[in-house]
Amino acid sequence: MDQRTEISSLGEFGLIEHLTKNVEIKNSSTLLSVGDDGAVIDHFGRQTVVSSDLLIEGIHFDLSYTPLKHLGYKSVVVNLSDIYAMNATPTQILLNIGFSNRYSLEALDEFYAGVYAACDTYHVDLIGGDTSSSQKGLIISVTAIGEVAPDSYVQRNGAQVNDLICVSGELGSAFLGLTLLEREKKIFEETGAQPNLEGQTNIVGRLLKPEARKDIIEFFSESEIIPTSMIDVSDGLSSDIMHICKQSNVGCVLHEDKFPFNPEAKEFAYKLQLDPTACALSGGEDYELLFTVAQADFEKVKANPAVSIIGYITPENEGKNLITRGGNKHALVAQGWNHIK
Amino acid sequence: MDQRTEISSLGEFGLIEHLTKNVEIKNSSTLLSVGDDGAVIDHFGRQTVVSSDLLIEGIHFDLSYTPLKHLGYKSVVVNLSDIYAMNATPTQILLNIGFSNRYSLEALDEFYAGVYAACDTYHVDLIGGDTSSSQKGLIISVTAIGEVAPDSYVQRNGAQVNDLICVSGELGSAFLGLTLLEREKKIFEETGAQPNLEGQTNIVGRLLKPEARKDIIEFFSESEIIPTSMIDVSDGLSSDIMHICKQSNVGCVLHEDKFPFNPEAKEFAYKLQLDPTACALSGGEDYELLFTVAQADFEKVKANPAVSIIGYITPENEGKNLITRGGNKHALVAQGWNHIK
Repeated sequence: MDQRTEISSLGEFGLIEHLTKNVEIKNSSTLLSVGDDGAVIDHFGRQTVVSSDLLIEGIHFDLSYTPLKHLGYKSVVVNLSDIYAMNATPTQILLNIGFSNRYSLEALDEFYAGVYAACDTYHVDLIGGDTSSSQKGLIISVTAIGEVAPDSYVQRNGAQVNDLICVSGELGSAFLGLTLLEREKKIFEETGAQPNLEGQTNIVGRLLKPEARKDIIEFFSESEIIPTSMIDVSDGLSSDIMHICKQSNVGCVLHEDKFPFNPEAKEFAYKLQLDPTACALSGGEDYELLFTVAQADFEKVKANPAVSIIGYITPENEGKNLITRGGNKHALVAQGWNHIK
Repeated sequence: MDQRTEISSLGEFGLIEHLTKNVEIKNSSTLLSVGDDGAVIDHFGRQTVVSSDLLIEGIHFDLSYTPLKHLGYKSVVVNLSDIYAMNATPTQILLNIGFSNRYSLEALDEFYAGVYAACDTYHVDLIGGDTSSSQKGLIISVTAIGEVAPDSYVQRNGAQVNDLICVSGELGSAFLGLTLLEREKKIFEETGAQPNLEGQTNIVGRLLKPEARKDIIEFFSESEIIPTSMIDVSDGLSSDIMHICKQSNVGCVLHEDKFPFNPEAKEFAYKLQLDPTACALSGGEDYELLFTVAQADFEKVKANPAVSIIGYITPENEGKNLITRGGNKHALVAQGWNHIK
C-alpha cells in the first residue's frame, strides 16, 4: 500500500461508486442493488431471514494484528454464520462502514477486497449500505439476508429431551489464536521482537479469517435433517448451549471427552498451560454450528466427519451439566464473550 | 434521569432482554423477531425493499442539543424515509447500537423510547440487531425492510423528458434548525447564556424529530400514481435532483418561485441573512420526497396540497438549471451534505 489517496478527493458518492463498481449480481432474487435508496429482493414462495451485527475497532478487532482484507472477509462471514444458524441460505448483505481520516482509499480497497472475496465464496450479493466518516476508528455494520423454504427455519427454542447435541468442526481455536496474537503483541510492545506465529497458522487463521458452515446446512438438506434447534458458536460453547436450553426450557449434559479439537490448537493450549476444554466452553468466535437433532437422526449425523455428537438434552430440572473426562459432573456457567463490559 | 444503572450490571443478553421486553409484533409477515440469530419475514407475493444507514455521534448528531429520545425516533425515521422513497411500505427494522460507558441504562431507555415511538407511528417491527460497547460515543446502524407490490417500486432512473418534478412538504427547514442550534450552542459555550429557541419550534423540530412521508406513498396508491422516479431529500434538493438526472440521463429545470417554504423558517433565514433558496438547495435532512411524474398526472398531484410542482425534466444536453425569481438561469451545483470530508 504505497499509494495514499485521500478519500475526501472522491466525495461520498464517488467513494460508493468506486467501492461498488465491480459488483456482479449473483442471485436472480436480487432485483435491485446498490445505488438507490433501498435494494429490492424477490422472495416469492420463500421466507426471508435477516441478521445484523456491529463491529467496532478496539472492541471487536485490533488492527495492529488484523489485516484489513481479513477483517472485510470476517465482517461478512460472521453475519452469514447467523443466517446459516437459522438453517437458511444467505443471499444478500448490506454493509455500513464508518472510518476516520486515518484510512486511505487503498486501506478501504483492502477491506472491500475481503468483503467481496467472502461474497464470492458464499455466493451472496452486496446490495447496499452506507459510508460515513467517524470520529475515531473503524466501524462496520453488516446486515445479512437469507432465504429458507417455508417453515424450514430452525430456532433456538425447539430442543427436546433426549435430543442429541451436535457441533460442527473444532472448538476453542479462535480463542487460542486471539491469545497467541495478544501475547505476541505484548512482547512486541515491550521488546520490539517480531511476532512468532510459526506452526500456529490454524489458530491464527481461525481467528482472523473464519469460515461459516455453509457445508453443514447443505448436509442437512441432502440428508433430510431438520435440527430441532440451532445456534452458531460465537460466544463460547457454554454460553451458546445455555441459550438453547433457556429458550427450549430444557437441560443438557455435555461430555468433555467428545469435544472436538484441532491437534495443533490443543498442543498450543497445553504449551500455554490453558485447558482446551475451558477454551471451548468460554472462548468465542468459533462460528461453528451447535445444534440438536432427534435420536432418530443419530446414524445420519454420525456419518458426517465434520459433526461431533457432544451430549444430549435433559429435562430442565436436571440442570445444565458437563461430565469431565474423569467422570465428574459440573454445572455449566455462562462465561462467553461479552462485548458490554 | 436521576437514576443511573450501569449497563454492565445487566450484561449483553440482559440488556437485549431489557430493551426488547415490551415489543409487540405489528406485521403478520413478521414470523420471527428479536432473540435468535436472525429474524424471519414472510413476503409471499410481495417484493422486499431494504436499506441501511449509519449514524455516528459527532458526525451525524450532536448530543449537546439532541435529546436521546428524539435521536432514537430520527434514527428510525431516516431509514423509513429511504423505504418510502422506493414507493414501498416499511415493515421491519433491525437496530445495531454501540455506546461507550458514558451511557447509563436510563439513557439507552430514552433512546429506545424514541425508537419504539417511531415504530408505533410507522407501524414497523423492530426484529433484531446487535448491541455493543464502543470506545467513543454513540454509534447507530439501522436497517429497514419494506414491501411493495411486484414491480411497483420506484427507482431514481426512470425520469423522462417533460415529466413534472415534485416535492413534498417544505424545504430548508432542517438546515435552518441546525444553524439555529449550532448558533445557540456557540453562544452558550462562549457566554453561558441559555439557548433561545422561542418561536422556532418548527425548524428545530424538523431537524431533531423529522417525519417520513408515509402520507405521500399512500396518496400515490389512492390516486393510482406511480412516479417515474423518486428519492428522499436527505442531502439537499440540488444534490438529490442531480442523482435523479444522472441516473435517468436527463436534465432539469427548477423554478425558485415554486420552492415550498415554511413561513417561520423563511423569516428566520432572512433574520440570519441566509437565502432560503440556498438552504433548500444545499441544506440537508429535510426527508421530503422528491419525485417525477408524467404530465398526465398533473391534475392528480396538483390536488394534493402537500405536494409542490417545482420544475420539469429536460433532455440531458440542456443541463440542470435553476430559474431564479428574477428570471435568470443558473446551472445547479451539487453541494449537499457530505459526511465524508
